Amino acid sequence: MRTVPIVLTGFGHVSRAFVTLLRDKRAEVGQRYGLRLDLAAVVKSDGCLFSGAPLDAAHVFRNGEPWVGGNPAWRPGMGLSEVIRSAAPEGCLVECTPSNIKTGEPGLAYIIVALENGWNVVTASKGALVIAFKKLRTLAAGHGLALKFAGATAAALPTLDVGLISLAGAAIEGVQGILNGTSNYILTKMADGLNYDDALQEAQRWGIAEPDPSMDVEGWDSAAKLLLIVNACLETDYGLGDVKVSGITGLRAGVVGEAVRDGKSVKLLASAAPKKSGRGWSLEVRPSLLDPTHPLFHVSGTEKGITFFTDTMGSVTLTGGRSNPRGAAAALLKDLINIYREPY
Amino acid sequence: MRTVPIVLTGFGHVSRAFVTLLRDKRAEVGQRYGLRLDLAAVVKSDGCLFSGAPLDAAHVFRNGEPWVGGNPAWRPGMGLSEVIRSAAPEGCLVECTPSNIKTGEPGLAYIIVALENGWNVVTASKGALVIAFKKLRTLAAGHGLALKFAGATAAALPTLDVGLISLAGAAIEGVQGILNGTSNYILTKMADGLNYDDALQEAQRWGIAEPDPSMDVEGWDSAAKLLLIVNACLETDYGLGDVKVSGITGLRAGVVGEAVRDGKSVKLLASAAPKKSGRGWSLEVRPSLLDPTHPLFHVSGTEKGITFFTDTMGSVTLTGGRSNPRGAAAALLKDLINIYREPY
Repeated sequence: MRTVPIVLTGFGHVSRAFVTLLRDKRAEVGQRYGLRLDLAAVVKSDGCLFSGAPLDAAHVFRNGEPWVGGNPAWRPGMGLSEVIRSAAPEGCLVECTPSNIKTGEPGLAYIIVALENGWNVVTASKGALVIAFKKLRTLAAGHGLALKFAGATAAALPTLDVGLISLAGAAIEGVQGILNGTSNYILTKMADGLNYDDALQEAQRWGIAEPDPSMDVEGWDSAAKLLLIVNACLETDYGLGDVKVSGITGLRAGVVGEAVRDGKSVKLLASAAPKKSGRGWSLEVRPSLLDPTHPLFHVSGTEKGITFFTDTMGSVTLTGGRSNPRGAAAALLKDLINIYREPY
Repeated sequence: MRTVPIVLTGFGHVSRAFVTLLRDKRAEVGQRYGLRLDLAAVVKSDGCLFSGAPLDAAHVFRNGEPWVGGNPAWRPGMGLSEVIRSAAPEGCLVECTPSNIKTGEPGLAYIIVALENGWNVVTASKGALVIAFKKLRTLAAGHGLALKFAGATAAALPTLDVGLISLAGAAIEGVQGILNGTSNYILTKMADGLNYDDALQEAQRWGIAEPDPSMDVEGWDSAAKLLLIVNACLETDYGLGDVKVSGITGLRAGVVGEAVRDGKSVKLLASAAPKKSGRGWSLEVRPSLLDPTHPLFHVSGTEKGITFFTDTMGSVTLTGGRSNPRGAAAALLKDLINIYREPY
């Protein structure tokens, strides 16, 4: 049995789901992969939970809320680098702070500290990778460390595994994806006859859309995921400014209804296509009309999907994958296991 | 640049496509993965092509046919173990002999020789794995060697990568697949109104069905693939006799037509479901009626697809992947690269 210390940053829904999943899967991960994943600490900006012994879910959350005040494991002022120096052997940072796609922080600083101290990194947050993917990737490779981010790129839908592993040796000639479950849910409801505002309200009522839905409906979440997938799988170094983004906010119900009557569907499609000029890629997120023969035509509700077009393997399409915090936590666990397991 | 000697067994369509692909992708594989894959030999039952220097496509095939008589590289009587001893450094067997699901030969003997001599194995042929998966897997693991078989389990459709890597840590609760392109093509044509015999003849005319189509249409090809996927991903040790198999040969056009009129489709579905009794799995291949909401409903023509149902990641569906010798060769190359590349 190999013991791996885990340090978690972030205290939100995904973190909570991850801590719970780690507990639920403890026996199975030990038995099947020979791994014991110990939660060594949870780090916040002003201190951390750290007791010198593995933390369990009951040490971290109380009544579903982060437990800081009165927690005997709370170490005010103790930061990530101090935790890493105290936790042996070398382990893995699991980064779950909120995504800030303009600054990349606070995740960016955490990831750099982890990699510079010889720890692997698994992240569910997009910000740092949107801002500094190439720098972080080079830093990880230079130290012989893993930097994995399934949790940031459609989570339980294994976009990167397929793009990087399953298509190895094939040339990817294009990528098209429905990468945001919230906007796809709204479009599905609009296809059922609702107008945009009513569809958004229904999504908010079910907790599918956030109170401020702009990241999702204006296409930036899709754009960030597309960017990460493209930069990883096509070995490019694009920034968010290279993606032409238009969301679904201005979409009239009539346009969606007309598409349905014509046997088509409107999807918020994120795509990468070779530039006409030859070199480089056109990256775009926009509402697009799909024919019934398109492999993503049937992706509906909160479901996501991606199609890779290749030279030797034809097109490979992936759909499904649970779109909730537990699905994201499962993607983090998957990445962790694949770093430390014996190769199959 | 890391040099990997490759020995190929088998001289059929997939072998030829593989030799061509190795040549076509030489620069790309070198540049992107730092690998130089050298074809050291092609082994037949009565001798091999071996010159001590890497073979290229022109040494192996002439006018699209295996080139043995008059080939200066032909070494009558030289077998796989002798080739392996002569080729340095350690390399990989690429096994492409015809699948015999009753005896596993000749692939079984070749794979054992390779593993016992410290070589990794990548195989496109199902026979040996159907007969002796657990034995071969144990042999490989015991020697710290890779035994990869994407080419034997739907090839360019990455069933094993997803089942083994992308779903790591999730419990697979069921598998359903359309794993045979030939029978799916025939069913698609029957949905268009043809009867079974006419649909089969059309498939044969296009080279989609073989002159003797029984392995495909009677369900045994699907059963063998299901068996390999289940034994690998669910860590079981079933044999072909454990799969309940019924094919599409007896299917009346009326049944398919009625399904279409009801908005459904008939697919040759290969499935693994937990036994009602609790322990173990029910394995089955049979024509099945799918609702439009089923994730494989839209898989048509020679396309294949698979859905994994899991506890934490929801269901993940894969469709597409080229169903021809070049697609199979690309799956072999993918497995090879993933054995030798630096981990991402």
